[in-house]
Amino acid sequence: MTLALWRSPLARALHRNRSLVYARYFQLATVRVDGRPANRTVVFRGFLDNTNQLKIITDARSEKADQIDQNAWGEACWYFPNTREQFRLSGRLTLVRESDADAQLLDARTRSWQELSDAARVQFTWSHPGTSREATEFNPPPPDPITPLPHFCLLLLDSTHVDHLELRGDPQNRSIYSFSDAIGWSMQSVNP
Amino acid sequence: MTLALWRSPLARALHRNRSLVYARYFQLATVRVDGRPANRTVVFRGFLDNTNQLKIITDARSEKADQIDQNAWGEACWYFPNTREQFRLSGRLTLVRESDADAQLLDARTRSWQELSDAARVQFTWSHPGTSREATEFNPPPPDPITPLPHFCLLLLDSTHVDHLELRGDPQNRSIYSFSDAIGWSMQSVNP
Repeated sequence: MTLALWRSPLARALHRNRSLVYARYFQLATVRVDGRPANRTVVFRGFLDNTNQLKIITDARSEKADQIDQNAWGEACWYFPNTREQFRLSGRLTLVRESDADAQLLDARTRSWQELSDAARVQFTWSHPGTSREATEFNPPPPDPITPLPHFCLLLLDSTHVDHLELRGDPQNRSIYSFSDAIGWSMQSVNP
Repeated sequence: MTLALWRSPLARALHRNRSLVYARYFQLATVRVDGRPANRTVVFRGFLDNTNQLKIITDARSEKADQIDQNAWGEACWYFPNTREQFRLSGRLTLVRESDADAQLLDARTRSWQELSDAARVQFTWSHPGTSREATEFNPPPPDPITPLPHFCLLLLDSTHVDHLELRGDPQNRSIYSFSDAIGWSMQSVNP
């Protein structure tokens, strides 16, 4: 596979903001079943091997799983405070559940589970997210680090449109990267 | 008017993160005309007088203006790094253009323009956002600080559902605030 044109500026942003743990967080927008937008902070877990797909993890019981089943489009908005730049990545989402038919994706799901800390894995033992608060065992034993819990999901964002804005430019710089099957990735400078 | 129940935790978050200029930025999700989500970083400009509506500014020539004309729903995702908490604010957006029929809103639009710095106002003199890059005058004279440029808009988010997540809780705390005409704001603790 070819590294998408936007991978190099994104890698540079990640490097130059590496002192901030939250520079690895971004906001993922999806569309709710009723047609309204939804938006939440997620953690960047790297790229799926040999692809340009961003990895995220989520819980099959969360609202976004249902939203993605109905409308697979997502847009990530990723702001880097140290360098004052923003990437907006728009594309299709793939939710990899326990029952996925693709063996490679299932393997990637298992490896994502294994790469988590115990503290991150333990969150998947909690009660159904978003329902009325239940008494939770405060120090539950960490779950098996090898085999993912059933509702653990890997979520992939396969961008086809990336909008990179650098607020520090003079006046500012904005680049649009688009993918087409015919010519692959191309880049255009636009007005900010 | 009554201060919404979520105003107090939000004010506390703003105060405890005041050392970070970007703690006043949040990500606003809308729905594109083709039904896909859009997401971008915006700057919080305070509350509209005597309301719980968040103020943002935008350019009538930006894509989000068209999106809001078609689908007025928005969701703000606001992450506070110092205190590790997130507010998701969902509600209707009102775009206040130069031609708005409401005199009070027009007045609020004018005051928002007057409160901006010259550096922020000058951005509204730039060429059409998102179109192919044009040579821009690098040091244009700042526009009139009293009368807004025609495409300057005030954007208001009137939340009816607010989801507050505190990652530092033990295990974590999550509160859902909802508004109904019959009972006003109510709050429920839910599983994170």
